[in-house]
Amino acid sequence: MNLEQLVLLIDQGEQATLQDTVASYRPIDLAESMEKLDQERQLMFVTLLTPTSAAEVIEQLMPLHQYSILHRLSAKKAAAILREISGDVVADMMLAIHRHQAVNMLKLLPDEYRTKVEMLMTFPEDTAGSLATVDYISARGKWTAEQTLKHIRKVGRTAKFTSYIYVIDAMGVLLGVVSLKNIIITQPSTQLEQIIAPAVSVSAWMEQEETAELLSRYDFVAVPVVDKQLRLIGVVTVDDVIDVMREEATEDIHKLGGSEPLENSYFQTSTFQLYRKRIVWLLILFVAEAYTGNVMRHYETTLSEVIALSFFIPLLIGTGGNTGTQTVATLVRALAMGEVQFKDIFKVVRKELTTGLLTGLSIAIIAFARAWMLGVEYNVGLVVGITALAIVIWASLVAAVLPLLLHKLKADPAVISGPFITTLVDGTGLVIYFTVARLLLQL
Amino acid sequence: MNLEQLVLLIDQGEQATLQDTVASYRPIDLAESMEKLDQERQLMFVTLLTPTSAAEVIEQLMPLHQYSILHRLSAKKAAAILREISGDVVADMMLAIHRHQAVNMLKLLPDEYRTKVEMLMTFPEDTAGSLATVDYISARGKWTAEQTLKHIRKVGRTAKFTSYIYVIDAMGVLLGVVSLKNIIITQPSTQLEQIIAPAVSVSAWMEQEETAELLSRYDFVAVPVVDKQLRLIGVVTVDDVIDVMREEATEDIHKLGGSEPLENSYFQTSTFQLYRKRIVWLLILFVAEAYTGNVMRHYETTLSEVIALSFFIPLLIGTGGNTGTQTVATLVRALAMGEVQFKDIFKVVRKELTTGLLTGLSIAIIAFARAWMLGVEYNVGLVVGITALAIVIWASLVAAVLPLLLHKLKADPAVISGPFITTLVDGTGLVIYFTVARLLLQL
Repeated sequence: MNLEQLVLLIDQGEQATLQDTVASYRPIDLAESMEKLDQERQLMFVTLLTPTSAAEVIEQLMPLHQYSILHRLSAKKAAAILREISGDVVADMMLAIHRHQAVNMLKLLPDEYRTKVEMLMTFPEDTAGSLATVDYISARGKWTAEQTLKHIRKVGRTAKFTSYIYVIDAMGVLLGVVSLKNIIITQPSTQLEQIIAPAVSVSAWMEQEETAELLSRYDFVAVPVVDKQLRLIGVVTVDDVIDVMREEATEDIHKLGGSEPLENSYFQTSTFQLYRKRIVWLLILFVAEAYTGNVMRHYETTLSEVIALSFFIPLLIGTGGNTGTQTVATLVRALAMGEVQFKDIFKVVRKELTTGLLTGLSIAIIAFARAWMLGVEYNVGLVVGITALAIVIWASLVAAVLPLLLHKLKADPAVISGPFITTLVDGTGLVIYFTVARLLLQL
Repeated sequence: MNLEQLVLLIDQGEQATLQDTVASYRPIDLAESMEKLDQERQLMFVTLLTPTSAAEVIEQLMPLHQYSILHRLSAKKAAAILREISGDVVADMMLAIHRHQAVNMLKLLPDEYRTKVEMLMTFPEDTAGSLATVDYISARGKWTAEQTLKHIRKVGRTAKFTSYIYVIDAMGVLLGVVSLKNIIITQPSTQLEQIIAPAVSVSAWMEQEETAELLSRYDFVAVPVVDKQLRLIGVVTVDDVIDVMREEATEDIHKLGGSEPLENSYFQTSTFQLYRKRIVWLLILFVAEAYTGNVMRHYETTLSEVIALSFFIPLLIGTGGNTGTQTVATLVRALAMGEVQFKDIFKVVRKELTTGLLTGLSIAIIAFARAWMLGVEYNVGLVVGITALAIVIWASLVAAVLPLLLHKLKADPAVISGPFITTLVDGTGLVIYFTVARLLLQL
């Protein structure tokens, strides 16, 4: 929405006009416009909206911003809006603010709903439980389709997720699931237990990444979350799963780039945070790479005898690094997507060695030609060609084995970044180069 | 499902037992087990299933495999199953097989449904139209909730997507959308046009990546697809969007690793394909990096006078590459997520230069210490430290500007891979190094 238009609507203060205009915009678009307003107008805007719309807009904000608006509203208004906000969003907000602020705000919720939200707050971050929302509809197996529809008419207005109805027993244990469509299609007198399907559920303590994988594998729009007694405690919906998948992909890309992943978006990350995320790995890699100095010094006499050897150092170790980076990127992603597992290690190594042999031979020919073009001795050209082949194969092997090994050790394979493999291959590549040189040039 | 158990069930050939057992498994799990069976048993298995279950299992296979099963079934059986397969999956299969095979297979579909599928087949790959399914339910604005529910009872059994009902006019133009829940909650006599919400729709020619972004931004479970006359032609559902998002992230990771993206999963890609995807960029980068040989030769006398300078070459250019790779990874992802745009270029450059200054200073101190440890002259240590600072800042600048520039030029910023930026920074880094050395050491 146009910012000027929004300011005008707020300043006029006509509730009906504003609500009418706002109806044709999506909550996220309204939230983004609202964030550009001054505090007073933000408060005015929220007050003029219906509680439902206000809740939808507030849901799109960051937790602290959500709280800063809600706590400045009248208790009655805040309570009306809070009740309409998704349970998982409320739980996240409560966890982001100070404990006594949370206690005060939670008092605004009806008892039963508050209990559910408080339970969601107990699950560790990055688990299915922490993603789950409580705005679903549950029913009993003995209920008929007609009874269930009546129930939906009663409680459905506040429920966010209604595509599936979850059937539970008296203890709250999840028995199965029925789609809303099937409840409509069946005879009104059919009992739910006759049309129930077995539900795939996840434990509240399952990692969010694994939950996302499961939902994506089965093409679900939601998956029920159960506690240790298999009681239904919430539902993880696909929109949250998409956010998780985007976050995970971002993390892997940052890690593969050799940096600690950023927790916020680029511009929300301060320069100092950016520095801290990067300097850790830069220093580790610097110290590791510093070892190349020892290698070079060790071969100082070889180098001073044939100074032309130095011409090819950046080229040869660069090519090793490039090969390693390619392989690592492919394998880290394949591991993340579940395409490759540790038990495939021999298949992977064979595939990468064969590919490395092919690319290495291609590169070796060009490397020899390049040496010839630079006008160095024939023998030095041979050393460069052979080293190119050896380094490419070596880089392929290291880059094939390390990510699989890390995955096996339950570490994140994305730690084996491009810069990491480059650093590793640089030092060892130099040793290969000088060894080949000494052998062939009889130094 | 356990493979032996499945073989046993198929060989016994008791339809009821098999259908009962299969009911507690998900289609993708069944499909994966089925793929391990011999051809005859695969056919037997599909024949023993209900058409609905068979369709769900077949949907999970690759298009050519789908066809190889369907065309060996009796026409009647094939027709029954084909009708139950999602329209978008049928369209993809038809596009994968030979034209006259497709014509024969399409004949098995009822006329009206065939027309819809044939239309889906006209949209280019990677567009919203090619992702769209036709198994949704549409209604008219004048219909009451009661009439609509009656309609759903009639056509709902074959519809895959029923969470939202799409309201169209007599020409098929999309007027808006009503959730199934709201149809149930409202008075039976309410006309849909009274409870309709404006629908966000996408053009059939919108790129699938953009469609995925839109659906993710608005937390939708589906988005309607319209043609140029704004007529509803299908619906893109969130499960397809998740697949698109995974593919796009994989592509970006492969590109950032300096390789052409693989089109299939790791083990589905042959060694030769892997070679072809990688050798292109390896050769380009090799030729680009070969330029470092000229730089080195140019400074041959400097090098031979102070051979200790060569000790730090891998370290210094390695650090430049690492810095560049970190920055590029962050920015390419931020561009893909829409967090950063070209108009932010000055903000980005300022942020990266400041961060580069901080990391550069940290690295410079360690580099100076490292030179001292290697026992080289004080002046050489100073050259190494100053060069480290300069290279880090230079790498930050290049890595900040290039991805934004490519994005502006409508090219894919992920082409600026880690290896690309490393190669670029290697050659220029050497020039910086030798220039600093000549100035400070008066060579």
